[in-house]
Amino acid sequence: MGSRRTPGLKLNTGAMMINRLTSEERASELADLRGWQAVAGRDAIQRHFRFADFNEAFGFMTRVAIKAQEMNHHPEWFNVYNRVEITLSTHEADGLTSRDIELARFIDSIAPGPLSA
Amino acid sequence: MGSRRTPGLKLNTGAMMINRLTSEERASELADLRGWQAVAGRDAIQRHFRFADFNEAFGFMTRVAIKAQEMNHHPEWFNVYNRVEITLSTHEADGLTSRDIELARFIDSIAPGPLSA
Amino acid sequence: MGSRRTPGLKLNTGAMMINRLTSEERASELADLRGWQAVAGRDAIQRHFRFADFNEAFGFMTRVAIKAQEMNHHPEWFNVYNRVEITLSTHEADGLTSRDIELARFIDSIAPGPLSA
Amino acid sequence: MGSRRTPGLKLNTGAMMINRLTSEERASELADLRGWQAVAGRDAIQRHFRFADFNEAFGFMTRVAIKAQEMNHHPEWFNVYNRVEITLSTHEADGLTSRDIELARFIDSIAPGPLSA
Repeated sequence: MGSRRTPGLKLNTGAMMINRLTSEERASELADLRGWQAVAGRDAIQRHFRFADFNEAFGFMTRVAIKAQEMNHHPEWFNVYNRVEITLSTHEADGLTSRDIELARFIDSIAPGPLSA
Repeated sequence: MGSRRTPGLKLNTGAMMINRLTSEERASELADLRGWQAVAGRDAIQRHFRFADFNEAFGFMTRVAIKAQEMNHHPEWFNVYNRVEITLSTHEADGLTSRDIELARFIDSIAPGPLSA
Repeated sequence: MGSRRTPGLKLNTGAMMINRLTSEERASELADLRGWQAVAGRDAIQRHFRFADFNEAFGFMTRVAIKAQEMNHHPEWFNVYNRVEITLSTHEADGLTSRDIELARFIDSIAPGPLSA
Repeated sequence: MGSRRTPGLKLNTGAMMINRLTSEERASELADLRGWQAVAGRDAIQRHFRFADFNEAFGFMTRVAIKAQEMNHHPEWFNVYNRVEITLSTHEADGLTSRDIELARFIDSIAPGPLSA
């Protein structure tokens, strides 16, 4: 099996200088996400998820894991039974960047609607 | 968390023309792999794995899945209990390419030694 | 973290004699499932799934894997990119049993609606 | 595919009264585990793991997840990139029980040797 991406060069953004979001960008991006909160004392965002059970929680985590490795951008996360807490920040930039927003958007797109919070 | 790759541009090789291996390349590459066989009637390679149990088999599959998505190059695979059969070929090239060899090498690097066959 | 199951003894049904479904049971159970077909030449059922992409397909497979090990009843399955084909049968009974129906019901409960087929 | 467990009734231990380990049992069991430490201020144990990379870390987590659901006994765990921190305690017993030891033993059996710490 092979590639199904659209043609074009892909930059390994992890290898380039990536800038922290400005206050304006940060506010604007956060307004578009679902349920992500600023972390106290750190330039990072966090969201808590609650699933029906462990099976659903770990299926979700597996999807986030596959995406994270594809982006080469990994979450800090905690799980116990049906709860998952995800914190996103960009180590190289020492703060929130567009890559965190991209991963947060993916996570929102696969998170269950009613139960999460 | 962020990127830990070494710096440099990364080409999305899946988007580029990628050529089938020549007979010489094919023979040379296959000699370096462990236990991969040519598939009859197709330009593809296959290896069978046997694990201690389903738990070990699916842990292995998860590692292959994460790598496959990172490469944007996916296996054809079959599993039942502790057995996994993986077939590799490159759809766009209609045959075996260097990307199959790269994925096969990763798979070999994480496969158990004594039980596989 | 601990158990959240409702109290009661649990039998390890895998260790007990388990009977193949009768023709009547089989027909009745299959009518309640979504999209499962009899396999030609075998007392087994099969369903094909199509997902948006590999990420979604493997998230689904992980959920089935966790359930399968919990039931100690494992599927025969094939995947390539966004397609998953699952075959269920009970080895010890040499045919279809209530355990296959139970696993098929779980699979149906987590399978995507519109894209599967 | 079907069951490969040895015959016999299996009790759903999660549904039964399960007692905290005594001080003697606790000391004896901990001495047999690899690298597990008591958690300050809680009757729980914790171990930190370090893997080669995220791929290996998440493959490990998937194996623990499958086992945890099979035991119906789930870890509290944290991951970032190649690090995994696992805390075990039994909620219903409000402390450490034989089920934590059983899960810790499984975890030890699949954890990498040299890199963990």
